[in-house]
Amino acid sequence: MTTPTLGEFGRIARFFKPLAAGFPGARGLRDDAAVFGVPDGRELVVTTDAMVAGVHFFPDDAPADIAAKLMRSNLSDLAAMGAEPLAYTLVTALPRGLDESWLEGFAAGLGEEQRQFGIALAGGDSVSTSGPITLSVTAFGLVPTGRALPRWGGQPGDRVFVTGSIGDAALGLEVAYGRLDIPAQDTRAHLLRRMRRPDPRMGVGPRLIGLASGAMDVSDGLVADLGHLCEESGCAALLHADAVPLSEAARGAIDGDPVRLALAITGGDDYELLFTAPPSASDALATLAADCGVAITEIGELRPGTPGEVVVLDGAGAPLALVRRGWDHF
Amino acid sequence: MTTPTLGEFGRIARFFKPLAAGFPGARGLRDDAAVFGVPDGRELVVTTDAMVAGVHFFPDDAPADIAAKLMRSNLSDLAAMGAEPLAYTLVTALPRGLDESWLEGFAAGLGEEQRQFGIALAGGDSVSTSGPITLSVTAFGLVPTGRALPRWGGQPGDRVFVTGSIGDAALGLEVAYGRLDIPAQDTRAHLLRRMRRPDPRMGVGPRLIGLASGAMDVSDGLVADLGHLCEESGCAALLHADAVPLSEAARGAIDGDPVRLALAITGGDDYELLFTAPPSASDALATLAADCGVAITEIGELRPGTPGEVVVLDGAGAPLALVRRGWDHF
Repeated sequence: MTTPTLGEFGRIARFFKPLAAGFPGARGLRDDAAVFGVPDGRELVVTTDAMVAGVHFFPDDAPADIAAKLMRSNLSDLAAMGAEPLAYTLVTALPRGLDESWLEGFAAGLGEEQRQFGIALAGGDSVSTSGPITLSVTAFGLVPTGRALPRWGGQPGDRVFVTGSIGDAALGLEVAYGRLDIPAQDTRAHLLRRMRRPDPRMGVGPRLIGLASGAMDVSDGLVADLGHLCEESGCAALLHADAVPLSEAARGAIDGDPVRLALAITGGDDYELLFTAPPSASDALATLAADCGVAITEIGELRPGTPGEVVVLDGAGAPLALVRRGWDHF
Repeated sequence: MTTPTLGEFGRIARFFKPLAAGFPGARGLRDDAAVFGVPDGRELVVTTDAMVAGVHFFPDDAPADIAAKLMRSNLSDLAAMGAEPLAYTLVTALPRGLDESWLEGFAAGLGEEQRQFGIALAGGDSVSTSGPITLSVTAFGLVPTGRALPRWGGQPGDRVFVTGSIGDAALGLEVAYGRLDIPAQDTRAHLLRRMRRPDPRMGVGPRLIGLASGAMDVSDGLVADLGHLCEESGCAALLHADAVPLSEAARGAIDGDPVRLALAITGGDDYELLFTAPPSASDALATLAADCGVAITEIGELRPGTPGEVVVLDGAGAPLALVRRGWDHF
């Protein structure tokens, strides 16, 4: 069903101006651009993530879930840089006949995200498309000058850590596709929720400055992303598969079919933080985990070797063969 | 013809990393985000414009022309704020089968724009789509703190000015559609070039700070955009149609059919600067125009009245009836 459309200006007034009300730099979405300062001693961190219906989400996903995933995938990049979120811009390319109720749900979802993560809309653009719903967010954060967490700071001997739990989103996707049958309602719900609404580690990221030697977020799959981190750091890594933290739901799914462990550690969309730190940081990381209420688990170590090479060991210490390391999101 | 695709990482390495080489904040496109500072006494200006094949450009337009229009529409917004360009991020959503040569031409076009306008790639995202080519740029500029040019500073008695010439792009579009027959090759070429490669007024914009009371760029059409400027300024305006600056090419087309004057002043995509200034600024504006080699023409004035109301007068001083004021780009 199609309701009469408001046009670009009407849509901006109704759905987007309220989202910009909390950020003076948005100039009420009334000007040609946003304008804001960066405080002394801080640098701006800028990241962009785009999502296309049918590629990154199901066309019939709830618009508020789509808003959440779009925002959180960007916020996760800010956290991986050690940045505190500030604002974002939004580009929507929407089919002409799209029901206004979709946009209403999407904007409501953005509003929830803004409240939860302390971020506001600074500007954007709205265009029409003959193709699928296409969305992108550019997120802005602040980090102490010169202290942003690079991917490439790790060196041989550093330990590899990951926040939260790995594999929920990949298993959730299997549930969504009907390829993974999980009878327990709450287990199924947990995996789907983690796929649709990842938990960016905003509390942890900024506090990794001074502790972590290198950091990134896990979006292409744990093994692939550890490979990226190693490549940038000019070293190799060992990854202990049985040390990878799993949620109860994921552990249950994997106990039922051990092949799913490979899926969990190579599937994408975890949006957990993957970082390296010297062994001396262990106590401080334990304190940080306790303070934030987020698990931080040691899962391997960097070692000399071919840059980017990741050897995955099973519980018996034998190399685990993986058909693929992760996802190429393109 | 489709060549084997490089995948996301290969495309980034081949086409985009060279574009980021000039901007340290891009971190070589090797990190989760860009990081850059804003100098003391400056604020960041952020604008975003998106373009979709079949909506904002013809699918078979030269990719370098598409890159130029995408970049220049954003740069024009920076100029309208009085900002100097700094960097940009890019989001591409491309059909999977797109020939790599398209991306090669597009990236080469971006490179030309970067050299011409002194801007560099800071980051971005590349995704695939089942729909048309969809592109967006978020451009960053710098402006002295507190001095960004608002749309809403004008008041009754201020004169209305516009840079360059108006209507070329709208007439060029008619030529492209085959609805306007212009025998002279160079005239046709001028109109098409101005449609495909607008001339953002980067030299003029920053020097309007302290002279202009309000400013914006003309993208939806002169009359419509003057209406937006008036609405934000809480006043009305008179626009003298015969004072609107026309290129020789546009004047020739309009002399052949006066109805085309309406098209010129209501068609979009001019990317000229539209601004208001007190009468006392006239001499300084003449100097600025001479310094920059860009015409600055007085075309009307603000007056008390219904906010947003624009009365267009013809050469005899009689109101000109317009079927529409401009384009709703959505």
